[in-house]
Amino acid sequence: MPRFRITVEYAGGDFVGWQRQANGPSIQQSLEEAVEKLSGERVEVVGAGRTDAGVHAMAQVAHFDLESDRFDANTVMKALNFHVKPDPIAIRHAEEADGDFHARFSATKRSYLYRILNRRAPAALDAGRVWHVPQVLDAEAMHDAAQALVGHHDFTTFRAKHCQAQSPEKTLDSLTVSRVGEEIHINAHARSFLHHQIRNITGTLKLVGEGKWTRKDVEDALAAKDRAAGGPTAPPDGLYLVSVGY
Amino acid sequence: MPRFRITVEYAGGDFVGWQRQANGPSIQQSLEEAVEKLSGERVEVVGAGRTDAGVHAMAQVAHFDLESDRFDANTVMKALNFHVKPDPIAIRHAEEADGDFHARFSATKRSYLYRILNRRAPAALDAGRVWHVPQVLDAEAMHDAAQALVGHHDFTTFRAKHCQAQSPEKTLDSLTVSRVGEEIHINAHARSFLHHQIRNITGTLKLVGEGKWTRKDVEDALAAKDRAAGGPTAPPDGLYLVSVGY
Repeated sequence: MPRFRITVEYAGGDFVGWQRQANGPSIQQSLEEAVEKLSGERVEVVGAGRTDAGVHAMAQVAHFDLESDRFDANTVMKALNFHVKPDPIAIRHAEEADGDFHARFSATKRSYLYRILNRRAPAALDAGRVWHVPQVLDAEAMHDAAQALVGHHDFTTFRAKHCQAQSPEKTLDSLTVSRVGEEIHINAHARSFLHHQIRNITGTLKLVGEGKWTRKDVEDALAAKDRAAGGPTAPPDGLYLVSVGY
Repeated sequence: MPRFRITVEYAGGDFVGWQRQANGPSIQQSLEEAVEKLSGERVEVVGAGRTDAGVHAMAQVAHFDLESDRFDANTVMKALNFHVKPDPIAIRHAEEADGDFHARFSATKRSYLYRILNRRAPAALDAGRVWHVPQVLDAEAMHDAAQALVGHHDFTTFRAKHCQAQSPEKTLDSLTVSRVGEEIHINAHARSFLHHQIRNITGTLKLVGEGKWTRKDVEDALAAKDRAAGGPTAPPDGLYLVSVGY
């Protein structure tokens, strides 16, 4: 009973999110149906990160088991890429994994990128792939304030109300903000994240970039351990699951 | 009677091309309708490059005249960005121009980028924005062969049959091929290009990248002055008008 590990790129805009839901198409469902078309088997495709509606992935990692051992990894990759069409999903890599590999629970590091398009004109080429913020943002001030969030903290202030994590405590390994041409890039690395954590942090750092908040305000918001003390939730459009480490 | 010069970004996938046509929506039509919504005036928006269906622009340049002098450049930019919604078009810049400025005829340099996604997996995040070529391409061989096309030549071999240019002779100022991560980027600079010239060159250089053609084959194809001697036309998806110089 082989276990396959796949690396998946997708554009999240047309989906209700990674996870299978009754109210619309999910990346998980699309992949599970592709596996069924290949093998005739109904499987669960388990992802490392349950990205929200509209959130993208450059390299989500997932695994699934097949009863049959008829398929090698190369066939799996080619067949899934064929069967997920025309959904904006691509299987970048597939390999056989050990039976104790678990895409979600074995993951030790997740990296996300948040892209803000920081110019007056709205996005055309990257519509749905960035958050358009027309006011000029101070990336250096955002980066400095972001450092107040690095480390082990109670992130209740940046946690979605309906977050299902047992604890609001997480360790943020790094959080950097830099200007890249017309964009501001926020890169976040941690073993795991709370629901909406990066989008809530991004919405807060945007206030710093606009000069409405200081680093001290961010520190106070974190200390308040109260979602109402944080900034607004940034839209999903700019968020990318970049990689998962094991 | 003010003349406005605008710089426009667009995703070409949903359009029949830059130029207004009876058979579908064009970027020109969308902009002309936006100008009419702002001013009540029916104008012609003249573009520097008449990009084909599916071809994108990072910074197309265009001009139009208004009878009224009620609008400043800032208002024009904001209003056009508002009125072109929800089309994937963004006006990045607007300014008043001299009456003798002509977006097309005053242009002295045009820069294009062709993006090939060169990996086994198809495009997901960049679907419609790249040409997916799964075979590994030799970018160095492509670059070397490309140098045979630089300079003043009769480009009949790389010219669309229905090209309306008076002469097939053009001067290609530079043509570079480089690997950028999973992509191959072809950058082309010239005063002006023939219809399909870059897409036909790209389709030919791909043959070199695959090892099917040599630089000598490209030289011979150019010398043949016969479209049938060239490689196939690359799809429009990967082509971007990057900038126009005056």
